[in-house]
Amino acid sequence: MLKEAVYHVAHGSYAYPVGPTTLRVTLRAARGDLQQVKVIYKDRYQGAGEQVAVMELVAVDELFAYYQADLELWTKRFAYIFYLDDGRAPVFYTEKGFFADPLPRVEFQYPYIALKDLWEPPKWAQGAVFYQIFPERFANGDPANDPPNVEPWDARPTPTSQKGGDLRGIIQKLDYLADLGVDAIYLTPIFASPSNHKYDTTDYYKIDPHFGDLDDVRELVTRCHNKGIRVIFDAVFNHAGMGFFAFQDVLKHGEKSRFADWFNIYDWPIETDPPNYETFADGIATMPKLMTNNPEVRAYLLDVAKYWIEEADIDGWRLDVANEIDHDFWREFRRVVKQAKPDALIVGEIWHESSDWLRGDQFDCVMNYPIQYACLDFFAARTIRADSFANRLAKVQINHTHSVNLAMFNLLGSHDTARFLTECAEKKERLMLAAAFILTYEGAPMIYYGDEVGMVGETDPDCRRGMIWDPRKQDHEIRDWYKDLIALRRARSVLRTGQTRVFLADSVQNLIGYARYDDEDQVLVILNNSDYERTINMKALPWPNGAPGHVKELLTDTLVDSAQLIIPPLGTAILG
Amino acid sequence: MLKEAVYHVAHGSYAYPVGPTTLRVTLRAARGDLQQVKVIYKDRYQGAGEQVAVMELVAVDELFAYYQADLELWTKRFAYIFYLDDGRAPVFYTEKGFFADPLPRVEFQYPYIALKDLWEPPKWAQGAVFYQIFPERFANGDPANDPPNVEPWDARPTPTSQKGGDLRGIIQKLDYLADLGVDAIYLTPIFASPSNHKYDTTDYYKIDPHFGDLDDVRELVTRCHNKGIRVIFDAVFNHAGMGFFAFQDVLKHGEKSRFADWFNIYDWPIETDPPNYETFADGIATMPKLMTNNPEVRAYLLDVAKYWIEEADIDGWRLDVANEIDHDFWREFRRVVKQAKPDALIVGEIWHESSDWLRGDQFDCVMNYPIQYACLDFFAARTIRADSFANRLAKVQINHTHSVNLAMFNLLGSHDTARFLTECAEKKERLMLAAAFILTYEGAPMIYYGDEVGMVGETDPDCRRGMIWDPRKQDHEIRDWYKDLIALRRARSVLRTGQTRVFLADSVQNLIGYARYDDEDQVLVILNNSDYERTINMKALPWPNGAPGHVKELLTDTLVDSAQLIIPPLGTAILG
Repeated sequence: MLKEAVYHVAHGSYAYPVGPTTLRVTLRAARGDLQQVKVIYKDRYQGAGEQVAVMELVAVDELFAYYQADLELWTKRFAYIFYLDDGRAPVFYTEKGFFADPLPRVEFQYPYIALKDLWEPPKWAQGAVFYQIFPERFANGDPANDPPNVEPWDARPTPTSQKGGDLRGIIQKLDYLADLGVDAIYLTPIFASPSNHKYDTTDYYKIDPHFGDLDDVRELVTRCHNKGIRVIFDAVFNHAGMGFFAFQDVLKHGEKSRFADWFNIYDWPIETDPPNYETFADGIATMPKLMTNNPEVRAYLLDVAKYWIEEADIDGWRLDVANEIDHDFWREFRRVVKQAKPDALIVGEIWHESSDWLRGDQFDCVMNYPIQYACLDFFAARTIRADSFANRLAKVQINHTHSVNLAMFNLLGSHDTARFLTECAEKKERLMLAAAFILTYEGAPMIYYGDEVGMVGETDPDCRRGMIWDPRKQDHEIRDWYKDLIALRRARSVLRTGQTRVFLADSVQNLIGYARYDDEDQVLVILNNSDYERTINMKALPWPNGAPGHVKELLTDTLVDSAQLIIPPLGTAILG
Repeated sequence: MLKEAVYHVAHGSYAYPVGPTTLRVTLRAARGDLQQVKVIYKDRYQGAGEQVAVMELVAVDELFAYYQADLELWTKRFAYIFYLDDGRAPVFYTEKGFFADPLPRVEFQYPYIALKDLWEPPKWAQGAVFYQIFPERFANGDPANDPPNVEPWDARPTPTSQKGGDLRGIIQKLDYLADLGVDAIYLTPIFASPSNHKYDTTDYYKIDPHFGDLDDVRELVTRCHNKGIRVIFDAVFNHAGMGFFAFQDVLKHGEKSRFADWFNIYDWPIETDPPNYETFADGIATMPKLMTNNPEVRAYLLDVAKYWIEEADIDGWRLDVANEIDHDFWREFRRVVKQAKPDALIVGEIWHESSDWLRGDQFDCVMNYPIQYACLDFFAARTIRADSFANRLAKVQINHTHSVNLAMFNLLGSHDTARFLTECAEKKERLMLAAAFILTYEGAPMIYYGDEVGMVGETDPDCRRGMIWDPRKQDHEIRDWYKDLIALRRARSVLRTGQTRVFLADSVQNLIGYARYDDEDQVLVILNNSDYERTINMKALPWPNGAPGHVKELLTDTLVDSAQLIIPPLGTAILG
C-alpha cells in the first residue's frame, strides 16, 4: 500500500456535516491501490455503539482515488478510523498514523456537529444560472444619459471608449433574459466612476449618472424580482478610484488629510505619476489600494455593503480582487451582509485554489476559474483529453463541500478573458459542447453576456463589445442550445442540486460522461469531444468510480433498449 | 519520485506570513526522495523579477520530509512554484500538478500579506512557563470559608470530597510560584458551583464562596501582576451546572420558561434522572449543554468573557470542551476578548488535531495533548523509541505556524489525566527527563501543580490530591531540577522563542537531540532516554535535517574541545 498517498483531515472538505446528525468524510489514497475502504466510527464518549460504513469510490484523478461515506450518529460527536484493504496488508489509518491493530486514543475526531457550523450557500444560488452583464456594453436604454463622444455600438472597443449602455437598457431587455431562462444577473460595477468598466470607484453611494440613478436601480431590481431573477452587484473594495473623496482629500491636504491612513502612501508629498502609494496591480495610479486594517475604512465599506442591500434590495455581492483583502475583513463583511439579508450571496473573485475562503466564515463560492481553465484546455484549445479533463474536475469537486460546488460560478469567460468562442477559433460546435457541459455539470453556470448569441472578442478590451441585438446578426443555433439546456436544467432539479459522478473519461475516444443523481431522479450526460462519431455500449461501461444506487436502476431498467448509443462528432447525449 | 507524497497548500501552516513582506512556505515530500528543493517565486502581477530560494530540510517523520523557505517580496503578492530534484527526473510542482516544463497560470498563490492576517499569539505567552492550579487542592488560605465536612488535606480524594483550598491559599503561595519561576498560572474554574472541580457552573459572575470573592480574585491578579505573573481563567461555556439560573428556570417553568431555548430539551416535561436533554458527555444531568446558536446564550457568555477581563484584569481564558462549541461562537469570542484586552491569551482544550481552530480567527493555542501522548509513550511507558518520538514531534511542528507552536501548552499531565510520575511507575528520573524536554523544547510548558515536588496519583479523582507543602515530603531534587531549567529558560530567550531543529533521533541508543536557535543564540539539547551511559561524538553527528547556519558555528567553534560527550543513563546534556 502506498501510505504516502493516504490523506484525511477532520475538517474542510474532507469532513463536513451535511445534516444535523450526518457527517460526510472523504479519504484519499493512491489511484488503484485499494480494494475496499471502510470507516469505523462511534460517539466520542460512548465506548459502545461502534458502527461501520463502507466508503464509495467517488472520483479519481491522475494520482489519487477519493472515497466518501456519510456517517450518522444522533449524538453528533464523531470519533473514527479508516480500514484500508489493498488485498495484501490491510491497515487502519488514524489521526496518529497507520496500525495493523489500532491503539486507544488514535481516532480522527469531528467533535460535534453544531447547528451554527451546518452552513451552505443560499439555496437559491445552488445550481442557479447566472448571467454576467457589463452595463456599459449591454444595452443603451436612455441615450439622454450617454457620456460625451460615445462610439458606435458596433465599433471595436478601446480601453477607454464608451458606448452608452445603462440600467434602462437592462430593464428593457429583461424579457430577453427571462426568455433565456436565467435565475440571476451579476452586474459589473455601476457606481460613479470615470471609466467604462467602473472598477475605479468615485462614489460608492451613487449610481454612475451615465448608467442611471437610485430609482433606476430600484426599478431594475424590483422588475427582476417580479420575474424571479436575482441581482448581484460588484463590490470593488480592494481599491478606490482616483476621484474617491478620501483620496481627493489626501491629494489636496497631503499628510495632514484625515484620510491619509485610508491608503498606503510610501512617502510625502504624494505623487501620482508614477504613484508613490500602494495601488491595485502594478502602479495603477487611478486605483489606490484601500487599507482595510483601518477601522474607519472597514466601517465605511461595510456600510456600503449594507446600504445597497437595504436601499436597492440586491441579492448579493461579487467581490472584486477578493483575495488581496484580509480574511478578517471578509468575516465581518459576511456578518454584515447576512444580517442585512440572510440569503444574500457572497461570491469571491479568486482565480486560484480558494478553499481558505470557503469554510463558512467568508464566501459562499467563487468564480470558478479552475473549471474555466479546464474547459479552455479541453473544449477550446484541445490541449488536454478526456482523462486529464476528468482529473481536473475531480480536484475541484474534492476540494470543496458539495453545496459549495453547487454554487460555484462555472464560467467559460468573463470581462477579464477572451470570449470562449474566440478561444475556440470560432468553431461554434466547441462552444456549444462546453456550454452543454457547464449547463449540466454541478455548479452555477455563469453566462457572459452575448456568449449565447455567438459573440467573439479577444481579451479586454475586445471581449467587451456591444451586445448583439440585431436578430440577423445573432447566432440562433447557439442561443436555442443555451435556452434548451437552461430549460432542461429548470425542468430537472437534479441538474441543479444533484450529486455528480464521472463514469466515463476516455482519452482515446475523447469522451467524457457523468451522472447527476439524487434520491428522486438521475440524468446521464456524455460529451463527445472528438471530430468523429462514437458508439457507446451503455451496458458495458466500466463505471470506474462505481454507479450510485439510483443510477444503477437507470442503467438496468431504462436503458434496456437503447444500450447502443451513437453520438455524432462534438455531440452531446443526455439520457434519463 | 514519489509524486503521491508531495503536498503543499497556499494557506494554513504550509504558507503563512512571518513578516509584512515575508512568506514562509513548507513543502512535503517522501522521506529520502529528494536531493534538492527550490522555490521560484515572483509578484502576482509583474512578469519580471523572478526569484529563487533553496528550501531547507527542517523535519522528517516516518513517511515524509518537510522543507521550508522564507520568501521575501516587497509587493507582498506571491506566485510560486517548486522545483523538486530527485537526481533522476526533476519536475516542477505547481497548483495544477507536476510539469517538466511549467505552463503559464499554474502557480500557487498567496495573494497578499494583509497586515490583519499577520497574526500570532500574544508575545508574552510564546515560550512562557504556565502552572496549572486546581484551586480546591492547592492551598487552604482561609479555613473560615471551607465547605462543610472537608476531608483531611492528605486524604486520597474521592469524586466528591472537598479539602478547602481557596484563592487566599494561592495568594499565600505566590512567593513559592515566583521562586519556581513561572510566567503565568492557569486556574481551573473558580465560579460558584457545588462540585470540587467547578466544571458545573451555578453562577458565571460569582466567585465560589468557598474559594473567596471578587476582592480576593482582584487581589490575586494584582499580586500576580506585581510579580510579573499572568493569570488565566477557565471558561466552561459548553455546558452550565444544574444550579445555573436559566436551567433552574426551565426546571421550574418547563416549556414555558423564557430560557427553554437555552438548552436542548428532547421532550417535555423535562426529566433529570436520566436526563432527557442534551448534556456534556453521556447523560451527565448536572451539566446541561448550552445552545450557543441561541443569540441570547451567545450574548450572555460573551459578556461573561468580557466581565472578568474588565473586573479582575485576567490575562486570558482556557476554553473547556472547546471543540464542541461552534466555530462562529469562538470567532465572536475572540473579537470580544481581544477588544477587551488585546494581549489576552485564548487557549482551547482540544485533545486531538486542532489546526482548524488555530487559523488566527479563533484560538491562540491549545493544550498540547499530542505532545503529552508522545511524552507518555516515550519517557513514561517507553512503548516508543527515539525515532518514533521525533516523528511525533515533527507532525506537531509542521501542523502549526511557528508562533502557535511557541504558545502551545506543552503538558505532561493535567487534572484530567494520571500524574506523569505515576505513569512513570514512580521512577522519577523518567519524569525529570520529560520535564527537561518540555522545558527546553518549543512551546509553553505547562506544569500541573505538584508535579514539581514529586506528587503522584492515578487519573481523576486521584490526580487531584492536596498539594504537598511539607518540605520533608516534597522531592527537592525534582523541584530543583524544574527550577534550574525554568531559570535557564528565562536566562536564554532562545529556549522560549527560538526555532527548533531535531538533529538526533537514534532508536538504537534511544537518544533524542534538538537545537534551539535564533539569530543571537543557540542551544543544543540531548536526552538519553536509555538506562545506559551513551557517548556521542558531536562532530560526527549526521544532522539528518541539516544544521542551521548559527548552529553550524556552534558545532565548529564552541565544541572543538568537547567533541566527546558522555551522557549518563536518563541524563540530559545542554550545550551552547
